[in-house]
Amino acid sequence: MSLAPAKIDLDRLRALLAGVNAFGANPVTGGFNRPGFSDAHMACISWFEDQMRADGLATRRDGAANLFGRLGDPDGPAILIGSHLDTVIEGGAFDGALGACVALECVRAIKEAGLTLKVPIEVAATSEEEGRFGGMLGSQTITGQVSPGWLETAADAGGFLLTDAMTAQGLDPQAIFTSARPPGSVKAFLELHIEQGPVLEAEGIAIGVADRVSGVCSLECVLFGAANHSGTTPMDMRADAFAGLAEVSAAIPDLVRDHGTDQSRITIGRVDLTPNHPHTIPGMAAFTVILRDVDEAVMRALKRELSKVIRRKADKNGLTHRIFERSWLPPAALDVPLADHALRIAGALGVPAKRMPSGAGHDAQTMQALCPSLLVFVPSRNGISHAPEEHSNWADIEKGANLMLQLLTDLTT
Amino acid sequence: MSLAPAKIDLDRLRALLAGVNAFGANPVTGGFNRPGFSDAHMACISWFEDQMRADGLATRRDGAANLFGRLGDPDGPAILIGSHLDTVIEGGAFDGALGACVALECVRAIKEAGLTLKVPIEVAATSEEEGRFGGMLGSQTITGQVSPGWLETAADAGGFLLTDAMTAQGLDPQAIFTSARPPGSVKAFLELHIEQGPVLEAEGIAIGVADRVSGVCSLECVLFGAANHSGTTPMDMRADAFAGLAEVSAAIPDLVRDHGTDQSRITIGRVDLTPNHPHTIPGMAAFTVILRDVDEAVMRALKRELSKVIRRKADKNGLTHRIFERSWLPPAALDVPLADHALRIAGALGVPAKRMPSGAGHDAQTMQALCPSLLVFVPSRNGISHAPEEHSNWADIEKGANLMLQLLTDLTT
Repeated sequence: MSLAPAKIDLDRLRALLAGVNAFGANPVTGGFNRPGFSDAHMACISWFEDQMRADGLATRRDGAANLFGRLGDPDGPAILIGSHLDTVIEGGAFDGALGACVALECVRAIKEAGLTLKVPIEVAATSEEEGRFGGMLGSQTITGQVSPGWLETAADAGGFLLTDAMTAQGLDPQAIFTSARPPGSVKAFLELHIEQGPVLEAEGIAIGVADRVSGVCSLECVLFGAANHSGTTPMDMRADAFAGLAEVSAAIPDLVRDHGTDQSRITIGRVDLTPNHPHTIPGMAAFTVILRDVDEAVMRALKRELSKVIRRKADKNGLTHRIFERSWLPPAALDVPLADHALRIAGALGVPAKRMPSGAGHDAQTMQALCPSLLVFVPSRNGISHAPEEHSNWADIEKGANLMLQLLTDLTT
Repeated sequence: MSLAPAKIDLDRLRALLAGVNAFGANPVTGGFNRPGFSDAHMACISWFEDQMRADGLATRRDGAANLFGRLGDPDGPAILIGSHLDTVIEGGAFDGALGACVALECVRAIKEAGLTLKVPIEVAATSEEEGRFGGMLGSQTITGQVSPGWLETAADAGGFLLTDAMTAQGLDPQAIFTSARPPGSVKAFLELHIEQGPVLEAEGIAIGVADRVSGVCSLECVLFGAANHSGTTPMDMRADAFAGLAEVSAAIPDLVRDHGTDQSRITIGRVDLTPNHPHTIPGMAAFTVILRDVDEAVMRALKRELSKVIRRKADKNGLTHRIFERSWLPPAALDVPLADHALRIAGALGVPAKRMPSGAGHDAQTMQALCPSLLVFVPSRNGISHAPEEHSNWADIEKGANLMLQLLTDLTT
């Protein structure tokens, strides 16, 4: 493999990321707030578009406020490279923004090295990936996966409609339906992202190449008991909804061992007791279960066994129960030749890299429906993301960015 | 034992209780709202005082808004009989109010039967028993147990100061400290109350006579982990604060079996996870533990063993922990001769009765510091209290009220 003469300018990349993170920064917490279609998100898109234009890219936005900056032939299929500019509430500096900045830095490095493009490149800054209104809206728009029924009712946690949020920013929500890229118009989509997990750091590996993305099953469950007096109700005459929930949770490690894989994840993240009063036995325990695996058959087995455990623990504690499946996203495979290519580059660059599944969802898995897509991870310090403490080492970022640059030049020059 | 000629008039008692429950009634929920020193509570006291006066009782209120209605010699030690008129928020029709109404009905029956009192009787409607500002304020005032430091800072859940609540009702909070009854001025305190538990109903017994009241230890605990992404963090790299809490809860049945008694109660009633988001591993789990037994040595053993369990489960799950003892009320013994007397009367009346501990706190245990005190229970349907569904059968109430009447005549005529 011959390596391209282009190289990432790390200081320039850091300055670009700092520019993005001037938008939505909370100086008190150190967090960033650019939820989809917020003023901070839209201002960030405009600023990023200005940077693209200053670099001579031809820019345009589609109906979902996805931003594209094109270098090379204005016609014909392009290689897309990028990630999202929006954040969760009080998110970190790297999630999404790093991938968009690396994409633009790659183009800057290619221009700087005077390389001639045989295939045009589009730097993509995708919109509303983080899920203020559900997530992946940008890549779902590009791939034509947004349904009119969903768009009509999508709302954020405060009940604010997506259509109202878009209209308030001067956007026409219906333009989403005329923004899908036709099949064949995109040759590939390349995304660099932080891992958001602890695996690469723990193994001392700078680069992860995702070959699969876990499926996600989201359950909302309730255990119903009787909210009696904590002093007057003997232990053996209780119907304690929390005691039942605790037994369900305590059974999860065995359940994963017996029916899961090392990629299985079962998380009880939200618990709401009623009345949630110290002196009253909990009469109701509502809780969420997020269940993931890279194998859909394993997901089905885990859900079936977990439902059995909930029923058994409910019966044992004198409770009734309800399980509602809120959503089921099957696991997704990413493009194998692209992943192989990325791993070959890592080898040529002498960078430790590994093939790994992605436990979180990303635009790349949505884009795979339209074109071969690649997802490259750099390590997250302590595995933390979606928080002000989110951090990735710049030495690792430089390795990841140079890998993306090499891949991009391989595909376009 | 010779039975007195006086009998309870159940219809008159029902009408009196209905009169009390005209105050603070919520027609939508069926619940009652007379928290201590609320307008509804104060209006109820005034109405009840009017009823006492109409029956020829000499009434007065003390500095905590305890109401007394006296029959017989205006001088000399009296027998006090009664309970509280305040309720929790959205409480039931019987908790407290029933005992106050039974007390006044007993006096009405004695007058109706033309009995002559050798010992004066005071019907007592105690104040703020339910704990808007901590609980038992009425009986603590009568027994001189309120401290100036506590009074100054006592506040309700909304941060509203007790002193401000009293002042707003035209009361002088400092009068609490001149309201203690001198030793010897009260011969005995008799209280009828609903059981608030399921034991009497389950055993088909109409009357419970409490000989002891459980001690209460109130703990506030926190488990600290790491709030990471539910998809990207492998199960064996988590520090899941809720998983640790669930293991603590699941260990409680064995802990009670090995170190407790049939009167032990351990309740996790309140759980607050942070961030409490479905897709995030809980980074912090704050929870309360209410631990009770009638034996203080058992309470100490349970607390020690529970603390060990919390430490062990924290270590196992990679968590740190904090345990804060918010309060420790030792178990209390009630007067044995009075309880024996009540049980003899039950036998003479042919009413199934049992000696039992009280799992909940009541004014009688506070009054025991001043005078021999008695606590008599009638069954609670399904063990429910502090809720609109709270109910006791009128046939049981009649038996309990006639027992109280017989005891009162035994002690005063």
